[in-house]
Amino acid sequence: MKLIIDCFGGDKGCAPCIEAAQKAAKVYPDISFVLVGDEEKIRAELPQGFSEFEIVHAPDIVTGNDKPTDAIRLKRESSMMKAIRILREDETADALISTGPTGVLIAAATLRIGRVEGIRRPAFCPILPTMNGGIVGICDSGANVECSPEMLLQFAVMGSEYLKGAFRIENPRVALLNVGTEEEKGDDLHREAYQLLKSNPNINFQGNMESRDLLSGKYDLVVCDGFSGNVLVKATEGTAIELMKKIKKDIFSKFIYKIGALFMKKMFEEEKRFMNYQNYGGSVLLGTEKIIIKGHGSSNATAVYKCIEQAIAMQESNLNKKLKELLKSEELANV
Amino acid sequence: MKLIIDCFGGDKGCAPCIEAAQKAAKVYPDISFVLVGDEEKIRAELPQGFSEFEIVHAPDIVTGNDKPTDAIRLKRESSMMKAIRILREDETADALISTGPTGVLIAAATLRIGRVEGIRRPAFCPILPTMNGGIVGICDSGANVECSPEMLLQFAVMGSEYLKGAFRIENPRVALLNVGTEEEKGDDLHREAYQLLKSNPNINFQGNMESRDLLSGKYDLVVCDGFSGNVLVKATEGTAIELMKKIKKDIFSKFIYKIGALFMKKMFEEEKRFMNYQNYGGSVLLGTEKIIIKGHGSSNATAVYKCIEQAIAMQESNLNKKLKELLKSEELANV
Repeated sequence: MKLIIDCFGGDKGCAPCIEAAQKAAKVYPDISFVLVGDEEKIRAELPQGFSEFEIVHAPDIVTGNDKPTDAIRLKRESSMMKAIRILREDETADALISTGPTGVLIAAATLRIGRVEGIRRPAFCPILPTMNGGIVGICDSGANVECSPEMLLQFAVMGSEYLKGAFRIENPRVALLNVGTEEEKGDDLHREAYQLLKSNPNINFQGNMESRDLLSGKYDLVVCDGFSGNVLVKATEGTAIELMKKIKKDIFSKFIYKIGALFMKKMFEEEKRFMNYQNYGGSVLLGTEKIIIKGHGSSNATAVYKCIEQAIAMQESNLNKKLKELLKSEELANV
Repeated sequence: MKLIIDCFGGDKGCAPCIEAAQKAAKVYPDISFVLVGDEEKIRAELPQGFSEFEIVHAPDIVTGNDKPTDAIRLKRESSMMKAIRILREDETADALISTGPTGVLIAAATLRIGRVEGIRRPAFCPILPTMNGGIVGICDSGANVECSPEMLLQFAVMGSEYLKGAFRIENPRVALLNVGTEEEKGDDLHREAYQLLKSNPNINFQGNMESRDLLSGKYDLVVCDGFSGNVLVKATEGTAIELMKKIKKDIFSKFIYKIGALFMKKMFEEEKRFMNYQNYGGSVLLGTEKIIIKGHGSSNATAVYKCIEQAIAMQESNLNKKLKELLKSEELANV
């Protein structure tokens, strides 16, 4: 497997990417890494004489202020665009990891890498931990702020196959994010999507879900338009982070609480680990011809390492092969 | 002030409403209460011979399965419809509290009570506590699943005036819920709403907000379409509830954690109180001619009591008078 890493996407420079790649190279010796970015800075992070990684020099950086079309056209020497170009042109390249701006990455992926034939739009599918020890996928979490009912159906199919292939979940329980559980809830988009999901034999559809049930463990995949999916994921992560901050602050407010917290040190460390999104990697982009993983802009080495593991799981899942077969079926071919 | 309570809206029967009304009657002796619902059941909850409350018999109940139009047309003898009728027909009636189904309540409120002239659609504005001890209002949290940019502008104006009047927040900082902070983020609706909010002199607009910042304390009011507002509020509440459940479960998993928790008992009680939505009352419906408060279906007596306090705050805020003045202004009259 050949894995390209855009080393200058995130807020923390190239260090997290290089640390993660070094760790992964030890655990997965069969993977060949291509690191893209300012060569001098990358070499400075590596041990002297280290030659295991291919390094491709790219002096420029795509930032959050770049418009997608401008970045693609004008920032050809940026780490992200060069990484995309390698993924596209090198037939042996399998996957790309980037912690760069979402909008630019999606546009470049769609334009340069292309979609699986029959898929209307690629979609993000991040994974969150549920309270009963399982996981839940959210598709789409923000690649498409405007959606059609047919797109939501495709998100359900792609997400289900991803969970089957990469997480060995046999018959993923799929819910549609809505403002209430009753069938007729929501706007036209969600009412029509409900009917498509309900009648499609490739999906184990369980009905509508309200956002408060995301972490309940009742569902394996939540299908949503990219706007409300983005609101859902960030509200969940944000609330968890803010609450842990509040608890920490409150512990330090009284001596007796500090004593109590000493007894519970391990537990709080575990809660913190559980709620830290860095431990769950990035969002896989489903529906593109090659594997693309988007990490948080603030990713540390642990988060990038998780992205590498996600890329490997995607590779092993054979997702696109299965999608192509499914898309030939009657119920999906004409969507 | 005359306050109507639909006593048979919630999951818990009439007991929470009656307990709350009794408590409020002691604290606010100037309020006259009208309790609507099955008279026999209501009397059974009151001390014998108690005659302070007016009781209006309504044998039927609106349920979550009722379609709004059907409920309004066919369930005329339900507690909600009778309560709405009293609010409409009794000139001295000021406010209504109901924990009944949202969709029916909005439809009945719009059709029977009517909107403030110039307001396109009423909107819910629940209040959540922020992590720095303040509050944040979310408007709309689910009354309107489909919105126009002009509606979002009106939500901003209504929400700002509500926060000024009822919570004494001088110049509420308003944010627009979006998938990113940059001006051009989101779909057409949100991009157009951004421009309207930015150029309106009646609003202290701060730009786009991602859902993860809801509890940060940076904003006093978050403006959103009802669909993503609903996702936002329920995801935030749901995550807080699930996390507290997880922490509680983890404490009981080891003896040493239980010991530690004894030292921190007060703190955990405080966190639990802080995260319990029952303590924050219901959602005020902004933009109707008379005051309407929607409580959670699962409201206990504490939650209903908070709804009563919200109704009082609304009454004191003189919101509608201010809205009518504002709506005459050039920037809002033709929206």
